[in-house]
Amino acid sequence: MESLTIGLVSISDRASAGVYEDKGIPGLVAWFTAALKSPWRTETRLIPDEQPVIERTLIELIDTFGCELVLTTGGTGPARRDVTPEATVAVAHKVLPGFGEQMRQLSLQYVPTAILSRQVGAIRGRALILNLPGQPKAIKETLDGIFPAVPYCIDLIGGPYIETHDSVCKVFRPKSALAARSKASA
Amino acid sequence: MESLTIGLVSISDRASAGVYEDKGIPGLVAWFTAALKSPWRTETRLIPDEQPVIERTLIELIDTFGCELVLTTGGTGPARRDVTPEATVAVAHKVLPGFGEQMRQLSLQYVPTAILSRQVGAIRGRALILNLPGQPKAIKETLDGIFPAVPYCIDLIGGPYIETHDSVCKVFRPKSALAARSKASA
Amino acid sequence: MESLTIGLVSISDRASAGVYEDKGIPGLVAWFTAALKSPWRTETRLIPDEQPVIERTLIELIDTFGCELVLTTGGTGPARRDVTPEATVAVAHKVLPGFGEQMRQLSLQYVPTAILSRQVGAIRGRALILNLPGQPKAIKETLDGIFPAVPYCIDLIGGPYIETHDSVCKVFRPKSALAARSKASA
Repeated sequence: MESLTIGLVSISDRASAGVYEDKGIPGLVAWFTAALKSPWRTETRLIPDEQPVIERTLIELIDTFGCELVLTTGGTGPARRDVTPEATVAVAHKVLPGFGEQMRQLSLQYVPTAILSRQVGAIRGRALILNLPGQPKAIKETLDGIFPAVPYCIDLIGGPYIETHDSVCKVFRPKSALAARSKASA
Repeated sequence: MESLTIGLVSISDRASAGVYEDKGIPGLVAWFTAALKSPWRTETRLIPDEQPVIERTLIELIDTFGCELVLTTGGTGPARRDVTPEATVAVAHKVLPGFGEQMRQLSLQYVPTAILSRQVGAIRGRALILNLPGQPKAIKETLDGIFPAVPYCIDLIGGPYIETHDSVCKVFRPKSALAARSKASA
Repeated sequence: MESLTIGLVSISDRASAGVYEDKGIPGLVAWFTAALKSPWRTETRLIPDEQPVIERTLIELIDTFGCELVLTTGGTGPARRDVTPEATVAVAHKVLPGFGEQMRQLSLQYVPTAILSRQVGAIRGRALILNLPGQPKAIKETLDGIFPAVPYCIDLIGGPYIETHDSVCKVFRPKSALAARSKASA
């Protein structure tokens, strides 16, 4: 079975300078460890809030390391140094506005300031890039809410077939997609 | 009473090549036949997922055939061949983000993968263009949800006055718009 | 305590020509008079729906008069003369899509035609620009809904610390932001 390569990119001036410990990547790894049943591995990066560095990192993870899913954490707010969405859109071939809308809706259930987040979802080549919040609690809430649609998205752009533990995250695929797969493997 | 010209564009490599039967246009015609009380006619097109072809078709339907409303079906997903939103935005004078947001919200009530749709609504000249999903069931659900706001939009951009059967679709216009019309016809 | 300078811009061909009385700016002033506890003052402008005039006005209010918050009213619909969002995006350094999404969601509770609004929120330098609807009732409903997130946004872009009367509008700031401030003032 083909393995999924997940790029995990923590974007923070202070964490990348060692001023404080990065909590984004451990939060992401914990979620995937609990949720994924099919094989996966990660490529991780800890970088500052510099748009050219973020762009280069996303391109390298997808074009060189073959990541089919890249999750960023941090840098999506309104402050001058927050440039993660700008970098993501700059390297994207398609933007999927539903991810940003849904991530803000989910976070609005917890904090009114979720409205300030500029998170986006986007496609580059055969990879899906998602900007997640910086806090481990918000990372988990967001992935719980949006991940059910991610495996079918990866199917549509030509990536590996992702399976999850239903008790953690119940994946949704349209009946037509399930029928086509069951026919192909019969 | 001025007639509404509706452009119906089904966008699909396989349906346009005759590999399978198009179900989008019959679904759209069925909905309008049940819903519209004021006079209307259609211009229909069945074309492949090619951005230049989609752009030319939208421009021709609006600039040459005088459509005041154009509905597309298909081609709004994340796959490489899905380019309907790109073509729509390329020929648009204004994008109306509320339509895309609301169409995704409506579809999310049925399937979590609605988040993957990149549907947009846009204005070109005196016409409103709306990207709808490809499945007849999803077309009906979407039009039931958004059409109440469409006639007032067509009013604002200078098109004909649309009336519907309330039992199928209850149109909304602000009181100020209704008062101005009743005064004009008095 | 540093005072907040609020730019209030009413955008309407007819109101700016004196054909009818502007109700947008009085509606905005009434809301802020009731809501704000910390010091504030306004710069007001009444201008036509001309994109270059709107852009110049926004730039002048922010770059010359030092407004940290600019609210526009009017010009966000689908009609040809509605160009407020285009002007806002043209002068913006960052767009905050959550504001537009949330403002449409709030208005959809009252009228289905809220879907037609193209309102945006955006950052220019150290200022937040928000496009509000034109009607005083809709202005109040929108500010009631979104203002709780505005003071923290102004904090993040380097503006003055805004305090409100909780009975009118309960501001939200993350605990980390409140802890940092209480430490700084200790």
